[in-house]
Amino acid sequence: MAISNKIENFRMEVNRAFLTKAQDLAPALIEREVRPAGTVDIVPSGEDYTARPAQSGFTRSRPMGRGDRLCLDFGGHQVGYVSFTLTPVGSPPDAPAYLRLKFGEIPYELAADLSEYQGEVSRSWFQEELIHVDVVPAQVRLPRRYAFRYLEVTVLDTSPKYRVELGGVVCTAVTSGDRAAVPPLKTRDPELAALDRVSLKTMEDCMQSVFEDGPKRDRRLWLGDLRLQAQANYVTFRNNDLVKRCLYLFAALTQNEGRVGACLFLEPAPQVDDTALFDYSLFFVSCLYDYYEATGDRETLAELFPTAERQLELALRELDGRGIVTDRDTWWCFLDWGEGLNKQAGAQAILIYTLKQARTMAEWLGEAERAAEYAADIQRASQAALDHLWDGGRGFFVSGAQRQVSWASQVWFVLARVLRREDNVCLLERLMAENPGVPMVTPYMYHHFIQALMESGLTERAVSAMKGYWGEMLREGADTFWELFDPRDRYASPYGSRAVNSFCHAWSSTPSYFIRKYLNFSSNSL
Amino acid sequence: MAISNKIENFRMEVNRAFLTKAQDLAPALIEREVRPAGTVDIVPSGEDYTARPAQSGFTRSRPMGRGDRLCLDFGGHQVGYVSFTLTPVGSPPDAPAYLRLKFGEIPYELAADLSEYQGEVSRSWFQEELIHVDVVPAQVRLPRRYAFRYLEVTVLDTSPKYRVELGGVVCTAVTSGDRAAVPPLKTRDPELAALDRVSLKTMEDCMQSVFEDGPKRDRRLWLGDLRLQAQANYVTFRNNDLVKRCLYLFAALTQNEGRVGACLFLEPAPQVDDTALFDYSLFFVSCLYDYYEATGDRETLAELFPTAERQLELALRELDGRGIVTDRDTWWCFLDWGEGLNKQAGAQAILIYTLKQARTMAEWLGEAERAAEYAADIQRASQAALDHLWDGGRGFFVSGAQRQVSWASQVWFVLARVLRREDNVCLLERLMAENPGVPMVTPYMYHHFIQALMESGLTERAVSAMKGYWGEMLREGADTFWELFDPRDRYASPYGSRAVNSFCHAWSSTPSYFIRKYLNFSSNSL
Repeated sequence: MAISNKIENFRMEVNRAFLTKAQDLAPALIEREVRPAGTVDIVPSGEDYTARPAQSGFTRSRPMGRGDRLCLDFGGHQVGYVSFTLTPVGSPPDAPAYLRLKFGEIPYELAADLSEYQGEVSRSWFQEELIHVDVVPAQVRLPRRYAFRYLEVTVLDTSPKYRVELGGVVCTAVTSGDRAAVPPLKTRDPELAALDRVSLKTMEDCMQSVFEDGPKRDRRLWLGDLRLQAQANYVTFRNNDLVKRCLYLFAALTQNEGRVGACLFLEPAPQVDDTALFDYSLFFVSCLYDYYEATGDRETLAELFPTAERQLELALRELDGRGIVTDRDTWWCFLDWGEGLNKQAGAQAILIYTLKQARTMAEWLGEAERAAEYAADIQRASQAALDHLWDGGRGFFVSGAQRQVSWASQVWFVLARVLRREDNVCLLERLMAENPGVPMVTPYMYHHFIQALMESGLTERAVSAMKGYWGEMLREGADTFWELFDPRDRYASPYGSRAVNSFCHAWSSTPSYFIRKYLNFSSNSL
Repeated sequence: MAISNKIENFRMEVNRAFLTKAQDLAPALIEREVRPAGTVDIVPSGEDYTARPAQSGFTRSRPMGRGDRLCLDFGGHQVGYVSFTLTPVGSPPDAPAYLRLKFGEIPYELAADLSEYQGEVSRSWFQEELIHVDVVPAQVRLPRRYAFRYLEVTVLDTSPKYRVELGGVVCTAVTSGDRAAVPPLKTRDPELAALDRVSLKTMEDCMQSVFEDGPKRDRRLWLGDLRLQAQANYVTFRNNDLVKRCLYLFAALTQNEGRVGACLFLEPAPQVDDTALFDYSLFFVSCLYDYYEATGDRETLAELFPTAERQLELALRELDGRGIVTDRDTWWCFLDWGEGLNKQAGAQAILIYTLKQARTMAEWLGEAERAAEYAADIQRASQAALDHLWDGGRGFFVSGAQRQVSWASQVWFVLARVLRREDNVCLLERLMAENPGVPMVTPYMYHHFIQALMESGLTERAVSAMKGYWGEMLREGADTFWELFDPRDRYASPYGSRAVNSFCHAWSSTPSYFIRKYLNFSSNSL
């Protein structure tokens, strides 16, 4: 996710003991050497570009001089560090070699003219380097980490007296996700297997020192994204300590009043961002709930439950006299990208959803009194929602002063289980049949829609929606799942250029979660 | 110098013992921290650009975001390594800082649009870097060495959430020239004092691991340039071991048949270039002669004399039946830049000049028989020159089939002392009065002209010419003397852009030599 929402008079509150625990859980990264599978030509293809295979395998380039170019294909998405050798051909090199290196997750990034970029997201995220190699021959080790499949090398200049051969190109890919820990997949459905494979690769490439958001452009730890990654992790890589580390980081580094931030930075030192989002803070509750459910780690549950409770206290303060979360004009709650989406109803549903998880955690911890208090909060917030956000005439939950109907609001109310199960089924079917109001935009929101279908027993619809949405990315050639995909507007970007979109994004990696949690049996029935 | 002249079937012959001696003489570099004197604005000024002072002193920039720019003035020419700090202002940095750094010896380099450059010299010499700083705050240490006075920093982007302050900017300047070793100047002539000061700075910035040609663009050791640097060194920095090191490097690493190359590279390992120049190879003789004259180091003279002799053997093979050096169509002899200069007469003169030095060295070494042989060679080559290259009717030496008259030919025949002293005086006066044929272009050729005037007793003309030529660079604002300066065409470049010209160039640093050798007495008479 990439978002700006600065809180006033921001300060960070640090719990040293929690921070130490988090730091002690820092993972050792697994390294794997990946060599180019071959060379490609990036050529126009409709509105987009495609990588046309040129040569299979790659050992060493022809001698390259001023203006010569080469595009390497690493055969799939990589996150890591690239090194190569430059060998001179001709006279002793009498000038530095000057190279441009462009890394792309997709062909478009190599073809796009980035000089005109004026978007909000920093142009520093374009993975392009201009480097001088003073002494040739050289072993060049690029110090920065890249997320890419394609690497275009252009020799901007050598000198009239020599050219260079590029060889020994290797990417040292890094991850904290151990493939050996992933249980074998049982389903024989090839489409599900493909979705699972690409999900796993997406997860693997986002699993680093923390669960990163998108390894190309947003290396932070975002709480909403963590929640989905952790859910997928429990049924795949099972690096539960990495989840624990992230939970302790969020609990260790809070904003004013103990609010859990929307995201954290790890460098130069662990630091909570000054962005606050209503839903993301509450998802600390969910993450802790899911973690305990997956691990049974009672010590962590007990230690971090107060942090979870604090998020609910802060959220409950936002209820108006009717018991409805107060709407705001700012970007105060995420839910989904999407022009004009009103967040009030979704926020209300997420509050109820997390209150329910808190009630259960209180029970797990034997805190009956707290559980009863949460039950009262749930009752009040749910009744208020039914009284003020449910539009019986339209058969949908509405949000904000304009009484907006959106997919996000319905989906979250299904997940919050405010209506009876059979009414949720009807709500979802009505939603799909009528397709009213503001649609879903991100894979993140699609995840919640699939989850709502699954929990409502609409498994076939869920599978069909998942195959339709994520499967369409596969058909578009995705090596890893994307931050953004709108089947109605394939080349959309909220950033001003699709070249800054992230094409390996954690919140998109949940098909594995659905497949392994709900569909993992040896049958071709789905 | 920058030149291409590849020899066929090139191979390097290595004398390990000499190489070891050279490596043992590698100097420890003297480091000095230099901070910016202030900020400037680069503004158009006639056909050129100038640096208009903006702010005196510099500690820390204002917060800089996308597109903000700053130009620092280091108060004079520097050769060294730059470091600085970047401090974020605003929210925690959520994107790398992306900077463009442009280093310029002169304002023009910062203002020039280099994207259109198509010249022969490698564009890799433009001192421009695009760097991503992934983690801010940061202490940034640029790994490459730059030659510059001005540093322009442009923040290409931070992010909407933060900006950066630039501070702690320091250049660690490096040299193997110890200012404390330079004898005080006696002359009270302020113009000579200024020429001496700028010459010393030029030398200092070119004195590195070897005597470099130009620290911006040509970090090699060129033999013709070494000869002038060494002459200046003996009366200034007196780092005689550095000359000795360079002599041993040239003798250790020769081309086919033991030919001393035109230049050497030091990195990645000492290596002679495949460029051969008739005059440059012969200047090994001169360099050794001058070195012994300055130091009395008889061991080095004896050890390296065979290498000097080999250069003369190879050169004498080039004499035709008449005893004249065979002319060639290629770039076989340097003498000077300048369109259409024929090299035959100059080459003949340099052969005679170096034969005379060899004869003297043979005498110094007690090799009477060798001295007599050289005397015979001198007689034959001189008589041939008088018979075939001297045009009595025109009163000038002529060169090549077209019987070209050039300043270079006359100057070198004066230095070779083929005519009697009084005839040399007449020749020089005729040259200056008639200004015939191909003019001089480089400070390197001007040096030899001044030398010819000095040796002919035309001291006032020499001083006037020196003040006119080098003094004009001072009036143009030179901090160090330039590779190229043609008063008739001030913005000329043989490279396609003046931005690749070198503005601190060893072969231009000889005013100190003339001032200290011929003019260093306490009088205002000159």
